[in-house]
Amino acid sequence: MRKQVCIVGAGPAGLLLGHLLRAEGIDCVVVEQRSPGYVLGRIRAGVLERITVSLMEQLGLDARLKAEGMPHGEFSLADGERLIHIDLMDLVGQQVTVYGQTELTRDLMEACDARGLQVIYGAEGVTLHDVATDAPFVTYTSSDGTEHRVEARFVVGCDGFHGPSRRAVPASVGREYERVYPFGWLGILADVPPCGAGLIYANHERGFALASQRSPTRSRYYVDVPLTDRLEDWPDERIWDELATRLGPEAAAHITRGPSIEKSIAPLRSYVFAPMRHGSLLLCGDSAHIVPPTGAKGLNLAASDVYYATEALRAFFGANDPDAIGGYSDKALARVWKAERFSWSLTRLMHRFPEDGPFERAMQVAELDYIASSRAAQTSIAENYVGLPV
Amino acid sequence: MRKQVCIVGAGPAGLLLGHLLRAEGIDCVVVEQRSPGYVLGRIRAGVLERITVSLMEQLGLDARLKAEGMPHGEFSLADGERLIHIDLMDLVGQQVTVYGQTELTRDLMEACDARGLQVIYGAEGVTLHDVATDAPFVTYTSSDGTEHRVEARFVVGCDGFHGPSRRAVPASVGREYERVYPFGWLGILADVPPCGAGLIYANHERGFALASQRSPTRSRYYVDVPLTDRLEDWPDERIWDELATRLGPEAAAHITRGPSIEKSIAPLRSYVFAPMRHGSLLLCGDSAHIVPPTGAKGLNLAASDVYYATEALRAFFGANDPDAIGGYSDKALARVWKAERFSWSLTRLMHRFPEDGPFERAMQVAELDYIASSRAAQTSIAENYVGLPV
Repeated sequence: MRKQVCIVGAGPAGLLLGHLLRAEGIDCVVVEQRSPGYVLGRIRAGVLERITVSLMEQLGLDARLKAEGMPHGEFSLADGERLIHIDLMDLVGQQVTVYGQTELTRDLMEACDARGLQVIYGAEGVTLHDVATDAPFVTYTSSDGTEHRVEARFVVGCDGFHGPSRRAVPASVGREYERVYPFGWLGILADVPPCGAGLIYANHERGFALASQRSPTRSRYYVDVPLTDRLEDWPDERIWDELATRLGPEAAAHITRGPSIEKSIAPLRSYVFAPMRHGSLLLCGDSAHIVPPTGAKGLNLAASDVYYATEALRAFFGANDPDAIGGYSDKALARVWKAERFSWSLTRLMHRFPEDGPFERAMQVAELDYIASSRAAQTSIAENYVGLPV
Repeated sequence: MRKQVCIVGAGPAGLLLGHLLRAEGIDCVVVEQRSPGYVLGRIRAGVLERITVSLMEQLGLDARLKAEGMPHGEFSLADGERLIHIDLMDLVGQQVTVYGQTELTRDLMEACDARGLQVIYGAEGVTLHDVATDAPFVTYTSSDGTEHRVEARFVVGCDGFHGPSRRAVPASVGREYERVYPFGWLGILADVPPCGAGLIYANHERGFALASQRSPTRSRYYVDVPLTDRLEDWPDERIWDELATRLGPEAAAHITRGPSIEKSIAPLRSYVFAPMRHGSLLLCGDSAHIVPPTGAKGLNLAASDVYYATEALRAFFGANDPDAIGGYSDKALARVWKAERFSWSLTRLMHRFPEDGPFERAMQVAELDYIASSRAAQTSIAENYVGLPV
């Protein structure tokens, strides 16, 4: 098979890119090792920035997002008894949209046939070749054992942190930046109404908690736990009890408990691989960078990468401008680094770190006091939360 | 001797408080172990916030400050080649005043006789007694060997980090919060014109540098050095060379070199002792807290402590309100903690830490990039730099 662009990975980044390229008349295919069901089963983020919503609008795939997505004009930081409201609309005149990553993926997936976006699922042993040259190709094996080869002018890696794309860049070319955190997030998904209108991030003496939601009838909550904890240690009731304590009395009064429909422990990591382009290979989203979930930047960064990649590929194929490809990595990374900074600093602010002494803990309290008292500090948080300009 | 208030320490905090209490008609004395010459010889900060200037105005002791103090409406952060200007006037409509702590102390000192503020210098072995009671007293020995005793309703400790006041609080009552930094600041004072209109804080790959000034003809520069370095390791020319490199080409082109008239290496420390009141003892300034010099908050925090202490003592003696004394510590600490946070975070941002890996270094770059691009971030820095409201 010969295409202009071969996209590796059919998560939200790969599908979004595929649809955007198709809309530009660029011939592409998406190769995914998993099944559609597996892709849809992954529970991920649920807070969309303006850039993510606007790409769906641009594609005309925002009907359900518009109908079911919930605009959030605020969120809160909790510290023991206190709730600090960050009024996004008042501070920066923008809001975010709560809409599950799973739903967004489904919308993109269901539009493939009608829009002629070809997605190959169940592609085993996906391997990238000759990405440093102008004639890269991707090989894989289909479930019937047949070997396939996709030749393309460009390969775009949208295959996440564990996918093969980043590993196709020689170690001598790329540099890794990483921070691993000494705790994980235990998440619970339940079909119960959320405890409040906005998200609540809490730094309690017993640890971190987040009250989040996917819809008016589906809630997503988190508490941080030691990395040595297992799911068996956390029956539902223990999680609900812990949430009620950590989120504080105001939120606890409105928590509706219910059986978990999904439960998982995820490690937290900050990671950047630079550059995000090598020869004819462009990396987008988690394949190049990971943020801790604090601040919900992961999916939105993938969307801005996809935006920059689309611009670069359009300039290459449409305007015959090879420099656009050369500029992709710097443009994408400038936004990536700022979002990494925000996610890292919000993680630092809202979690208890075992290595912190009384002074560092006092700095967390002082920062929350300062934020509570300063419109400038709240504006800085708000502009990062709704998403810095692309 | 019997007084309403006995002030321990005749640095700027003690003298400022003494004059303010005298202006309220409160009978007080200042006891200082050193000589006037020693006190004046200490080279310290030189950037005054509005609160500090306004207390001098209120006392009518601001004639020289007004004539010789230099209003600064901006300062800069440097990162390699780049200079990020923080335009204080544009961002928060305020400025700071560059005026040496030594000059401020001299103004306060020279007004003592005319205003009837009694200062006892050369008081050896100053000791605080019975501070938990309503009848505390202070003892000391004068240079002729005579033992003295000052009885007072309140004792105010303005005797710095190493003075006896804080140690008069039992360990069971007070709590210490501390962070020590893995480097010191090597300062050089020289009678040469400054290299620019505003201060420049630089984070260079070779380390931190600060271009500062005391007057149009006197400059104060700093570089950070390992704590194991000694002054002999740093002849003047080596300091000037290092400054030219670290401050970047734009500033370096305007540096005028000259012989040092003072040179010293000071360790950096964040420290808070809480509460700042125990019984009849109030702590002000460095006796209760230390900030790293980044951001020039030390003297200004002493001034706001003195402001709160004056309010509390006036309410006690004037309005017969004992609760005002009880509220002193919380009011002072609320501002102290926020200034500690700012000094700590600016220190974190502008220095290279040996424990930092590539990710943490990348976070410094990302934060500087973000600051350069965000009015909200610049406003937050500016409002802290000019001083949060008292």
